[in-house]
Amino acid sequence: MATKTRDIGELVDGARLWRRLMAMAEIGATANGGVNRPTLSPADNESRRLMLDWAKPLGLEASIDEVANLYLGRPGSDPEAAPVLIGSHLDSQPTGGKFDGAYGVLAALEALEAIAEAGIETRRPIEVVAWTNEEGSRFQPGCMGSAVFAGALELAALRSVRDSAGVTVGAALEETLAGLAELPRRQGGFPVASYLEVHIEQGPRLEAAGNAIGAVTGIQGSRRFGVEVLGAEAHAGTEPMPQRRDALKAACQIVAALEQALADESDRVRFTVGRFEVFPGSPNTVPGRVFFTIDLRHPEQQTIDWLTAAIEPTALANARGCEVRVEVRASAAPVRFDAEVAALIRRRAEALGLGHMELLSLAGHDAGPLSRVCPAGLIFVPCEKGISHNEAENAEPDDLTAGARVLASCLVALANR
Amino acid sequence: MATKTRDIGELVDGARLWRRLMAMAEIGATANGGVNRPTLSPADNESRRLMLDWAKPLGLEASIDEVANLYLGRPGSDPEAAPVLIGSHLDSQPTGGKFDGAYGVLAALEALEAIAEAGIETRRPIEVVAWTNEEGSRFQPGCMGSAVFAGALELAALRSVRDSAGVTVGAALEETLAGLAELPRRQGGFPVASYLEVHIEQGPRLEAAGNAIGAVTGIQGSRRFGVEVLGAEAHAGTEPMPQRRDALKAACQIVAALEQALADESDRVRFTVGRFEVFPGSPNTVPGRVFFTIDLRHPEQQTIDWLTAAIEPTALANARGCEVRVEVRASAAPVRFDAEVAALIRRRAEALGLGHMELLSLAGHDAGPLSRVCPAGLIFVPCEKGISHNEAENAEPDDLTAGARVLASCLVALANR
Repeated sequence: MATKTRDIGELVDGARLWRRLMAMAEIGATANGGVNRPTLSPADNESRRLMLDWAKPLGLEASIDEVANLYLGRPGSDPEAAPVLIGSHLDSQPTGGKFDGAYGVLAALEALEAIAEAGIETRRPIEVVAWTNEEGSRFQPGCMGSAVFAGALELAALRSVRDSAGVTVGAALEETLAGLAELPRRQGGFPVASYLEVHIEQGPRLEAAGNAIGAVTGIQGSRRFGVEVLGAEAHAGTEPMPQRRDALKAACQIVAALEQALADESDRVRFTVGRFEVFPGSPNTVPGRVFFTIDLRHPEQQTIDWLTAAIEPTALANARGCEVRVEVRASAAPVRFDAEVAALIRRRAEALGLGHMELLSLAGHDAGPLSRVCPAGLIFVPCEKGISHNEAENAEPDDLTAGARVLASCLVALANR
Repeated sequence: MATKTRDIGELVDGARLWRRLMAMAEIGATANGGVNRPTLSPADNESRRLMLDWAKPLGLEASIDEVANLYLGRPGSDPEAAPVLIGSHLDSQPTGGKFDGAYGVLAALEALEAIAEAGIETRRPIEVVAWTNEEGSRFQPGCMGSAVFAGALELAALRSVRDSAGVTVGAALEETLAGLAELPRRQGGFPVASYLEVHIEQGPRLEAAGNAIGAVTGIQGSRRFGVEVLGAEAHAGTEPMPQRRDALKAACQIVAALEQALADESDRVRFTVGRFEVFPGSPNTVPGRVFFTIDLRHPEQQTIDWLTAAIEPTALANARGCEVRVEVRASAAPVRFDAEVAALIRRRAEALGLGHMELLSLAGHDAGPLSRVCPAGLIFVPCEKGISHNEAENAEPDDLTAGARVLASCLVALANR
C-alpha cells in the first residue's frame, strides 16, 4: 500500500499544474502581476467556467450548491460511502496573488487527474470543491461557503450582507447561480468522510526551515470587529479647533491607542485595521464619520476574549467627543486539525522524500469550518518570503508540485478508508 | 443718493428670495435636508438651467466662459463701462447645506430684480455670475472658476485634474458646456469694475454679536497638501507585526503627530484631514497605501510658511518604515479686501438700520481671487450656530433678506461709480 500511494504522488504532473495556475491567473489579472477576483463577480464566475472546461475531459460530474460552492465529483466503488472532499477557493483579495486559493483547487484537480491516469479506483467518491468567498474582502465574513456547508453560518442571515457598492450576497449569489443554471443543484452540508486542502503558507516558516511540506496542526483564532466613529461635519476653515468633533482625528487616535493596548512582545497577537472609510471625504470638510474594521487573531481563545474586552473601553477613552460603536462582526475559534490526518501528511511527505514539519496556521482556511464536520487536514507549501495578500505573492513550481504529490498520496489513503 | 439707494435695498423681496433658495435646494437634495451638487455634475448643470429659467423673464443676457462660469447680464447706460460682477457659486459639498454659495447667487439675482423693478438704470452693466467649482471637493483646488477668471490659475494645467472616479476637469467641462451649447461663449478674464459677494458666515461670530451684517476685511490664507504613505500589503493573520510596513498605522500616527506639531493655543491655526483613502481596503489585508489631504489655514502668510516647514519632517519622523511623500497642491495667500468697499457695506447696513461689524473670513470665497483684479467686497450674514459644510446648515430668512438688501444697495452705488 505504501509503495502504491508513493507512485500516485509521483504521477502528479507539475508542469500541467503550473500551466493551469498561469491560465487561471489570467482571469482578473492585474497590471502588477497579481489577480483581482472578488467573490461572485464576473471574474470569479469565469474562473468557475474554466474549472468546468478542465473537468469535462476527465468525465467529472459537476454540481453546485445553494451558496455556489462548485463540486467536481469522481465516483467510488462503494455507492453508499461518503465522499472525500479536496479543494480550496478561487476568489482573491482585491490586489491578491496568483496562488492563494487557486493553487489548492488546481492541485486537487491535478491529484484527481493523476489518480484517473493511474486507473485507480477508490472506495469512496472524491469531489474537488471550490468554496465560495473564502477571502471575505467583498462580503464579510470570509470562509462563507465552507462555513455554510459546515453549518457554522446560516445562509439566510447572510443574504442581506452588502458589499461596499451596496450589492447583497443574495443578489450576487442569484446572478452567479443563474449563470451556471445548467449545473445540477444540490444541497450543501451532505455527509463527508474527510477533507483535505493544500495552500501556500502565507508566512516565512517553511522557507526558513527549507521544508517543502507543512502538516498543519490547527488555525489560530480570529475575531473581526466593525468600529463606527460619529462626529460632526464642519467647515475646515471656520470651525474652531476646540469645538470640532472630528471623526478622523478621533479614529486615528483610537487606532494608535489600540496598538498600545494590544501590543504583545511575543508577537503572537495579530492586529490589523484593513478597511478605513472616511465620510464625506472632502478635503475642506471636517469628517463627520469614520468606519473601520479590526482583524484580531491569536492562537488561544482565552487571549482573544481578553483582548476583546480591551477594545471598546480603549476606543471610548479616545473618542474625543465623538460617539463610538464597536461591534463584533465575526468570530472563528482556534481550530485543531485531526491528528491522524496530520500524521498521514507527514508520513506521505517522508515517503516521497520531501522535507516536512508541523505548523500552526496563522491564516483562516476553508479547512477550518470543515474540521467541524469531518476529519480535516491542511497541507502547506512555502511561498516566497512569506508574502501573500499582495500582487507580488510567488511560489516555486517544485514546491507546488510537492504539495500536489502529498495531496494525491494522502487522498488515495483517505478515499480507501 | 443715500435716500435712493436705501429705497433699493428695501425693494428686495425676501419671500421671493427664500422661495428660490428652497427651489434650488431641491436640486441634489439629500435625505437629511442638505444638498449634494458636485461641480460640473448633472445636478450642478440642473442648477444652472434653473438660473437661466429665472433670468429669462428679467431679460438678462446669459453667457458662459471657457471654465463654465455662468453670467447673467443687465446693460448699463455707458456701453464702454466695465461691468460690476455680483455672485457666488452653485456647487456644494457632498453633504452640504442649502445656503453655502446658492444664497450669494440668488441674492445677486434678487438684487438685480429689485433694481429692475425700481426702473433704475445704472451707468455700468451688472452681471450676476455663478462661478464653477468653488467647493473644491470633486476637483481640487476650489475657487477654480474665479481663480481662472482672475488669472490666478491656468485652465490648461487644470484640465487633467481627476475626480475620485477618474473623470478629468477637461471631460467634465466639455460635458457641461455641450449641455449649454445654446449660450454665447465668451472669454473670461474681461475687465471688471468691482465685485461684490454675499455669503453665510459659516462661523458663529455674527450670531454671537447679534449683527445681521458682516463687512469682511479679508480672508485667512490656506495651503492644501497631499500626503502619500506607501507601505507593503500583507496577510493580516500571518505577517509578523514587527515586519509589517502598515501604511494605515503609519498614517494614523502621522496625523496624530501633525496635530501636536501644528497645535496653537490661540486657536488661529486650522488643521483638517478631510480625505483619507486606504488601499486595498480589505479587512484582512494590511494596507499598502494611504493617501490623505491636509487643509492648513492661518490669517498670516508667515505662519503658514512656518507650519508648512514642519509638515514633511513630522510625517517622515513617523513613517514607521513606509515611504512618505508630501506635496503642496494649492496655496491661497491671505486676502485683504478693498477698504472703500468694506466701508460702503457698513454705511449701507447702517442706512438700512441693520447691525454690522467687521470680520475676517476664515473660509475661502470667490471674492478672494476677484480681489486680485478689481476692488472686491464680501458681505456676511449669520448662519445658525455657525454650522456649515453640513446638511444641518441653516439661516434665518430675515438675515438672508438683510444681506440681499445691503448687496442691492451697495450694487447701485458701485454701478454708478
